[in-house]
Amino acid sequence: MNDAKHTRDIILTVARKVFSDKGFHAASVREITRAAKANLGAVTYHFGSKRDLYLAVLDQILAELSQRIIAAAAQPGSSSQRIASIVHAFFAFFADHPDAPRVLIRELARGEPPPPPLVHHMGRNLEAILSVIREGQARGELRPVQPILAAFSIISQPVWFALARRNIAAVSGVPLDREELTAQVEQHIAELVARGLAPERSGA
Amino acid sequence: MNDAKHTRDIILTVARKVFSDKGFHAASVREITRAAKANLGAVTYHFGSKRDLYLAVLDQILAELSQRIIAAAAQPGSSSQRIASIVHAFFAFFADHPDAPRVLIRELARGEPPPPPLVHHMGRNLEAILSVIREGQARGELRPVQPILAAFSIISQPVWFALARRNIAAVSGVPLDREELTAQVEQHIAELVARGLAPERSGA
Repeated sequence: MNDAKHTRDIILTVARKVFSDKGFHAASVREITRAAKANLGAVTYHFGSKRDLYLAVLDQILAELSQRIIAAAAQPGSSSQRIASIVHAFFAFFADHPDAPRVLIRELARGEPPPPPLVHHMGRNLEAILSVIREGQARGELRPVQPILAAFSIISQPVWFALARRNIAAVSGVPLDREELTAQVEQHIAELVARGLAPERSGA
Repeated sequence: MNDAKHTRDIILTVARKVFSDKGFHAASVREITRAAKANLGAVTYHFGSKRDLYLAVLDQILAELSQRIIAAAAQPGSSSQRIASIVHAFFAFFADHPDAPRVLIRELARGEPPPPPLVHHMGRNLEAILSVIREGQARGELRPVQPILAAFSIISQPVWFALARRNIAAVSGVPLDREELTAQVEQHIAELVARGLAPERSGA
């Protein structure tokens, strides 16, 4: 790796942590370059503005999520198995990237239209999931609900769990945020969605 | 209504809007008292600190949600009907209080343990929903999943939809945030959860 690429990667790694801890506004370019042992102009040189650096962080996080979701959706198997793979991909991603929920919540809290990396990567995830739904419906394995609504049920539960797991544990008194119980949440979501999308039984 | 109660209510109404628009840190007591046409000491007099005022706003919002959820859970009917009533209560609440999602997202973005009003009201909501699940399971109308997991599926989808509806519309290109389509999302969630929690059919 050449030095410029190396500096760029270090800045990106440091910025991800600082943005996650403090949010976009409170994070300073000076703090990021200092922690990256780079000069103050390095952010401008490698990324452009502080906003561009933030978008690069968001792009990196969401690209990793997309890779996993698209790979999961491409697995062979029954519709139930493929839905379980997608739900698992969300859980595995958030387990490996504990900083990701905070960045996503802070992005949501901005209350502005979603930025290009979010629209791009979430759009790709959605397309991959919609393909699984449509194929399952074509095979008669899933009932003919609107695919976008089925996709919403698959995505919303793992994402909300990742974002609110600590609050859910605090409110319920059940430590659902602990790893051994998280696996049960994952399994529950996959099973509930698969059953909820199953076709009518004949004679029902 | 006496003058003191009147002033308190106006401050609460104004503070709710300012906190929703700007978030806790950016909101100023001066701005709130000025908009409420009260003197600068009125927040201290009626609430204590700015943080106490914020907690009063959160308490007001969540108390309204609790009332609706608890009333919905107390409805008679089949488990499917009661689940549909609960899902509807979430949607009706968010439709009537378009500022609520932003306050809740900003609260989540703080990344600190949930404050007492949130734990109190969400705890009451959860208890009401758990009762519906347990009664449905006792009657054999719902399969014996862990009640907390069933409750999670009922709560997570309407809440995530309220918080992320604009992003979901932007990513999908489907205007699910428009009222006529929101009703379809509500119906889908209620149906998916009811089917997902339905007991095994005999002979299955």
